[in-house]
Amino acid sequence: MKKRPGEFELIARYFAPLAGEGAFRLLDDAALLDVPEGKKLVVTQDALVENVHFFSDDPPHLIAKKALRVNFSDLAAKGATPFAYSLALGLSPDWSEKWVASFARGLAEDQAGFCVYLSGGDTYQSPAGTNLSITAFGLVDADKYTSRLGAQPGDHLFVTGTIGDAALGLMQRRGDIDSRALAKHEKSYLVDRYLLPQPATFLADIIGEFASASMDISDGLLGDLAKLCKASGVAATLKVADIPLSGPVRKLTKLMPDGLQTALTGGDDYEFLMAVPRQKKTEFNNATGALPVKISEIGIVNDGADGVLLVAEDGSSISFERDSYQHF
Amino acid sequence: MKKRPGEFELIARYFAPLAGEGAFRLLDDAALLDVPEGKKLVVTQDALVENVHFFSDDPPHLIAKKALRVNFSDLAAKGATPFAYSLALGLSPDWSEKWVASFARGLAEDQAGFCVYLSGGDTYQSPAGTNLSITAFGLVDADKYTSRLGAQPGDHLFVTGTIGDAALGLMQRRGDIDSRALAKHEKSYLVDRYLLPQPATFLADIIGEFASASMDISDGLLGDLAKLCKASGVAATLKVADIPLSGPVRKLTKLMPDGLQTALTGGDDYEFLMAVPRQKKTEFNNATGALPVKISEIGIVNDGADGVLLVAEDGSSISFERDSYQHF
Repeated sequence: MKKRPGEFELIARYFAPLAGEGAFRLLDDAALLDVPEGKKLVVTQDALVENVHFFSDDPPHLIAKKALRVNFSDLAAKGATPFAYSLALGLSPDWSEKWVASFARGLAEDQAGFCVYLSGGDTYQSPAGTNLSITAFGLVDADKYTSRLGAQPGDHLFVTGTIGDAALGLMQRRGDIDSRALAKHEKSYLVDRYLLPQPATFLADIIGEFASASMDISDGLLGDLAKLCKASGVAATLKVADIPLSGPVRKLTKLMPDGLQTALTGGDDYEFLMAVPRQKKTEFNNATGALPVKISEIGIVNDGADGVLLVAEDGSSISFERDSYQHF
Repeated sequence: MKKRPGEFELIARYFAPLAGEGAFRLLDDAALLDVPEGKKLVVTQDALVENVHFFSDDPPHLIAKKALRVNFSDLAAKGATPFAYSLALGLSPDWSEKWVASFARGLAEDQAGFCVYLSGGDTYQSPAGTNLSITAFGLVDADKYTSRLGAQPGDHLFVTGTIGDAALGLMQRRGDIDSRALAKHEKSYLVDRYLLPQPATFLADIIGEFASASMDISDGLLGDLAKLCKASGVAATLKVADIPLSGPVRKLTKLMPDGLQTALTGGDDYEFLMAVPRQKKTEFNNATGALPVKISEIGIVNDGADGVLLVAEDGSSISFERDSYQHF
């Protein structure tokens, strides 16, 4: 095996160049973050573990980007704009410098794309495979934080993008989809959507301005909407025909018996689910109309505690065995 | 195996009760932290991995406390007082509710002791054993942040507590020390020091007030001081006779050929290393004299880039094969 740099050399070579203001070139124990007056700090933390959240042979730069983006997605869903992140990186015993270099390149590319910097963190041995945890920091105007708790009966429900691509992309990645069902470009579309979330973080200000409640969809649309309803003390009705599905997913929902369930209850969408009060709907549509993201109205918030009702085109209700991804 | 709660039930039962202001009872994707005017936010992140940082059969409440304290130690070393933390907790496939209950009890006890609350985090599967990462948040007066970078030639070096207890406690825990060498109470003293750091976080304000540079000692006194010197662009001289050693460690340094090396270069002390300018030394001594923590002057900061010179009582210099713990 090629000689690998020691812990401190590794940090100096690959991570110190990513450090920003208040990070003291990663020479210090901690970082000093400045929260401007009138802003509040929004914090989220998500971990990624080899063989749970990603495969051992996934490209390291994409693992890095996914780790950042799942966190930035949480922040933007709260109306907050990410500005920094902390990284705890556990390397498996057989780590290579090449892997770390590629991983750090992914971080650097997304730092540029999302205008964020590394504030600090930790590197350590992880005997049974790579694992990492990112804590991301965002800023929001003090009165614009958008929780899951504010949805009101009568609010309209919107989602960004298309739903279920990543869940079916994961099945494709695992070889669990009959490969004859999809064209080559459809397969790679789904797998790409699994490998690299594209959260529309530029919507943060619009969410803060118009949404009464919001979250990112990471464990499946139906289960996540149920969580939002529970947190807000409301119920919701979705029309299945209004849920935006990509061409490949639409094809698979017809070919696979549990295709629709997978699309609506599988994880890793990283799209935004937003409740918008009726009186703000026109203005919301105007504000988002010219933006490079598809936004679809999918349902309505109701009184009650009945959870989420999914309605078919003929008016009948649809239910599935489970409504979301759970780790255990 | 007893039926275990699902992910969301686990969070509701054991972690939501630990959540504080801005954490939305852990019902939201993120937390909203308020940084008062005139204060800056200090952030640090440290991970703990089973079979690297702790043993599988360590009491869960002590693992929880150690995870918190290694982070609070970093914050206090910067002059910052901890107020909140985020927790990413990866549970091994054979996790039990009893383990989680004990772990959460440890968090609760230290939350009370350190006046902090849980702001959020993540729970997930960890196929190869428990791992966790804590990001801790502290506040510091805007001009009181104390980095590793400010030590000046002529500054006096101080440490809290005693050095090397935890490193030798780890050896004792592993059975690597001839057990006849120590009395029963000495063995348990050392192991306790390994299992449960006792960082004197109440020194945060004093560090902010008097120290030109400061860090917590987590990878061994000599190596950590070398890092502080490198970050500050200075060198240092330590008198070995002035380094505070507990009775059991003193005994082991006489009995074990590499006892002194282990004590001065082993990890997990979580004591503070502080550089104090000469003109502030009297005031620093006055301010700390009545506090319930032993503070010892151990050396001086010099001009130059020669690293750390360790001097024996006869004036000769002492050197070791390695100066600190490295993960790889």
